[in-house]
Amino acid sequence: MSRIPPQVRDLIHALPDSRIREISLFGAGKPGLIPLWFGESDEQTPDFIKDAARAAMDQGETFYAPNAGVAPLRHEIKSYMTRLYGREFGLNRFVVTASGMNAIILTMQALLDPGDNMLAVTPVWPNCKETAAIMGAEVRDVPLSEADGGWSLDLDRLFDAADDRTRVIFINSPGNPTGWMMPEGQRDAILQWARHRGIWIVADDVYARLVYDRPHAPAFVEVADPDDRLIAINSFSKSWSMTGWRLGWITAPVSLLGDLEKLNEYNIAGPTTFVQHAGAVALRDGDGYVAELLERLRRRRDLVAQGLSQFSRVRFASPEAAFYAFFSVDGVTDSLEFARRIVSEAGVGLAPGNAFGDQGEGYLRLCFASSEAALSDALERMRPLLDD
Amino acid sequence: MSRIPPQVRDLIHALPDSRIREISLFGAGKPGLIPLWFGESDEQTPDFIKDAARAAMDQGETFYAPNAGVAPLRHEIKSYMTRLYGREFGLNRFVVTASGMNAIILTMQALLDPGDNMLAVTPVWPNCKETAAIMGAEVRDVPLSEADGGWSLDLDRLFDAADDRTRVIFINSPGNPTGWMMPEGQRDAILQWARHRGIWIVADDVYARLVYDRPHAPAFVEVADPDDRLIAINSFSKSWSMTGWRLGWITAPVSLLGDLEKLNEYNIAGPTTFVQHAGAVALRDGDGYVAELLERLRRRRDLVAQGLSQFSRVRFASPEAAFYAFFSVDGVTDSLEFARRIVSEAGVGLAPGNAFGDQGEGYLRLCFASSEAALSDALERMRPLLDD
Repeated sequence: MSRIPPQVRDLIHALPDSRIREISLFGAGKPGLIPLWFGESDEQTPDFIKDAARAAMDQGETFYAPNAGVAPLRHEIKSYMTRLYGREFGLNRFVVTASGMNAIILTMQALLDPGDNMLAVTPVWPNCKETAAIMGAEVRDVPLSEADGGWSLDLDRLFDAADDRTRVIFINSPGNPTGWMMPEGQRDAILQWARHRGIWIVADDVYARLVYDRPHAPAFVEVADPDDRLIAINSFSKSWSMTGWRLGWITAPVSLLGDLEKLNEYNIAGPTTFVQHAGAVALRDGDGYVAELLERLRRRRDLVAQGLSQFSRVRFASPEAAFYAFFSVDGVTDSLEFARRIVSEAGVGLAPGNAFGDQGEGYLRLCFASSEAALSDALERMRPLLDD
Repeated sequence: MSRIPPQVRDLIHALPDSRIREISLFGAGKPGLIPLWFGESDEQTPDFIKDAARAAMDQGETFYAPNAGVAPLRHEIKSYMTRLYGREFGLNRFVVTASGMNAIILTMQALLDPGDNMLAVTPVWPNCKETAAIMGAEVRDVPLSEADGGWSLDLDRLFDAADDRTRVIFINSPGNPTGWMMPEGQRDAILQWARHRGIWIVADDVYARLVYDRPHAPAFVEVADPDDRLIAINSFSKSWSMTGWRLGWITAPVSLLGDLEKLNEYNIAGPTTFVQHAGAVALRDGDGYVAELLERLRRRRDLVAQGLSQFSRVRFASPEAAFYAFFSVDGVTDSLEFARRIVSEAGVGLAPGNAFGDQGEGYLRLCFASSEAALSDALERMRPLLDD
C-alpha cells in the first residue's frame, strides 16, 4: 500500500507556478545565456545605499523595529512623496513593508473575504492575482486592448466587470509587462466610480518613477482624498536597483494604520532593520541616481525598439514607461514553448507572455534594464527566430 | 453628514493588538527604563555575521534570490540540522523564510481553509494564533497546567480538543513564554496520534538551542518520518542574536517544496539576499557563539531565579529552556495594568501575561537576555511591587 504524500490545501496546490520562474529554471546554467527574463536591472545597488546599510549595522541597528517601520524611513517616505507629488501627506498614512510583493499580500489580507472578487487590469504581473486567490477571492481579468503594439483600457469594460461582491480594483500603472500608463482622465474617472461604489483601488505604483517624458506617472495618490478607499503600493526594487533588499511601503487612509501595523506584525514583523535605514538614505540622497538610471534606461529602450522594429515577425511600440519591451511575434501560439526555443537556439532569456495571463499569449517580455552591449548581442542572436 | 472612515474587513479589524507592543508603547521614551518586554537579547549581532553581510554586499548579492533560498544557505541548513539532530535530511525539505514569523503565516496559508480549526498549546506567543485567524480558521487553546511555577501538558486534554475540522496542532517547545519543554514521551505520543488522525503538527522550534542541560530540546524533526505531516519552524533571531535581520527556515515533507516556494514567491519573494548569505555563515561558524550565549543566559537565568525567589508574592520555577521568566504575582488579576505600574513605579518593562492568552492572566514575562547589571537593577527596582 503506497502512502499518499502529504499535501497542502487544494486552493494552494492549484496555484500556478510562476512561468517566469519556470523559464528561468529551464535556462539556468546555460553557458553564455543573456538573462532578460526578470524585472530586474543588471546594476548592483549603488554604493551610497550599501554604505548606509553598513553604517546602520555599525550603529547596532540589528534589533526589532516598530511595526510601521523605523522613524527615519517613514519621515523620508513622507518627504519623498510630498516632493514628488507636490502635496502634503500625513505621516500616519505610511507603513513600511518587506517589498512591494509583501505590501500586496498584506493588502489582500486586509481587504478580501472569501467569495469577494477583485478586478485586475491585464496583462499584469501574475503575483498580484495569486495573492487574491490565496485569500479565497475570485479574480476577474479586465484586458487592455492592443493596437500596433500600444495598449489602452476600455473603461466600460472595467466598470461592467464589477458586481456586488467586487471589493478591489487592482491597477498597475505604469504596467508590467505592457508599459501601459493610465491617462489622467481615466484615473479620475476610475476614482469617481470607485468612490461612488465603495470599491477599493489598489494601485501598484512600483514603476511610478520609470517614466521617460515626465517626472512621474499619473497616480491616484496625487488626486485622491486622504480617506478615499485607496491603497498605493511602492517598492525600492526598481528605481533604486534594490531588488534583493526586500523593501517597500504602503500609502493608505490613516484609519488603516493600526490594522496594517497588526498585519505587518503577524506576517513578518517588518523588513530587516538596517535595510530600512538604508532605504531612508536611498530616498534622501537618491534623486540623482534615479535620474541617471532613467537616462540609461531611455537609451536601452530606444536601442531595443530600434532593433525590434527591424524584425518582420514582431509587433511592438516603444513604451512610455517601465523597463519592458512586451512584443507579439507573428505565428506564436505558445509563448512558453517559444521562450524555450529562444533560450535553446539564441541563448537569450525572455519571459513568456502567457505568464501574465491569457491576454499575454503570443507575446514575449524583454526587460531592457541591461547593458547596451548585452541588449545588442541579444537582439542579434534572436534575429533568426524573429525575422523571416 | 460625516463620512465613515474606510476600514479593512471585520475579521482583520477584530484582531487584537499585541499587548507586548501595547505595553512597550506605554513605556516608550521613559528615561532610564530597563526594557525586558521583548523576546530579544540586548546583544548586537556578532561581528562575524555582520562581516558576512558586508562581504555579500561587496560581492554584489543585491539581486533577487531563488524562492527556496540561496544555495549556500540551504546547504548550511541541511548540514546544521544533520549535525544537531544526528540524522540525514534531504536538501529539498528546506525552504528559507523571512523570519520565523513569516514561516508561520506561510504555513497557515498552506494548511488552513476557512472553518478549519487549530489546537494551540497555551500560554503561547500570540502571533501564531493570529495567523490562523487571518486565514479564517478557529483557534482552540489547550492550556498547560502550572504547579509551583512548573508547566506540564495533559495529553488527554490535547487530544479531546480535536474534532473533524482539526487540521493543525501548534506546539512551541521550548515554549514562549513559559519555558515549558515537551518531554520525549509526549512528543512521541503526539506524533503517533497526529499521524493516525492525519493532522498536521506545526512545531515552532525557534528556542530549540536555548536549553540549559542538553544540546537541544526534544524535537519532532528528530523522530518524524520525512513524509509525516510535520512543519518545523526555525529562526535565526534568538540563538544568533539576529532579531532585526528577519531570517528563518521551514523543514517540511519534500512533497511540499514546490507549494512552499510558490507561497514564498507570492508573499515576499524571499528574505534579503545578502542577509541569506550572512545566515549561511552564522550556521557554519556560529556554534561557538551559541555556546557562549547560552552560558551567559544560564548565569542570567540563575540570577533572576535567585532574585525572584526572595519576593513573597511571586510564584516561579527556574525554566529548563528559552530565555524567559514567566512568573505569577499573588493578587494580580489584570496583568497589563500591573505591567503598567511596573513601568511607572519601577521603571522596568515586562510583558503582561495576558498577552499570551487567557491562561497567562496573573503572570508577567521577563526576558532575561540582558546584562546581569541590568537584571540586578531591575529586580531591585521591582522589589517594592513584588515583595510584601
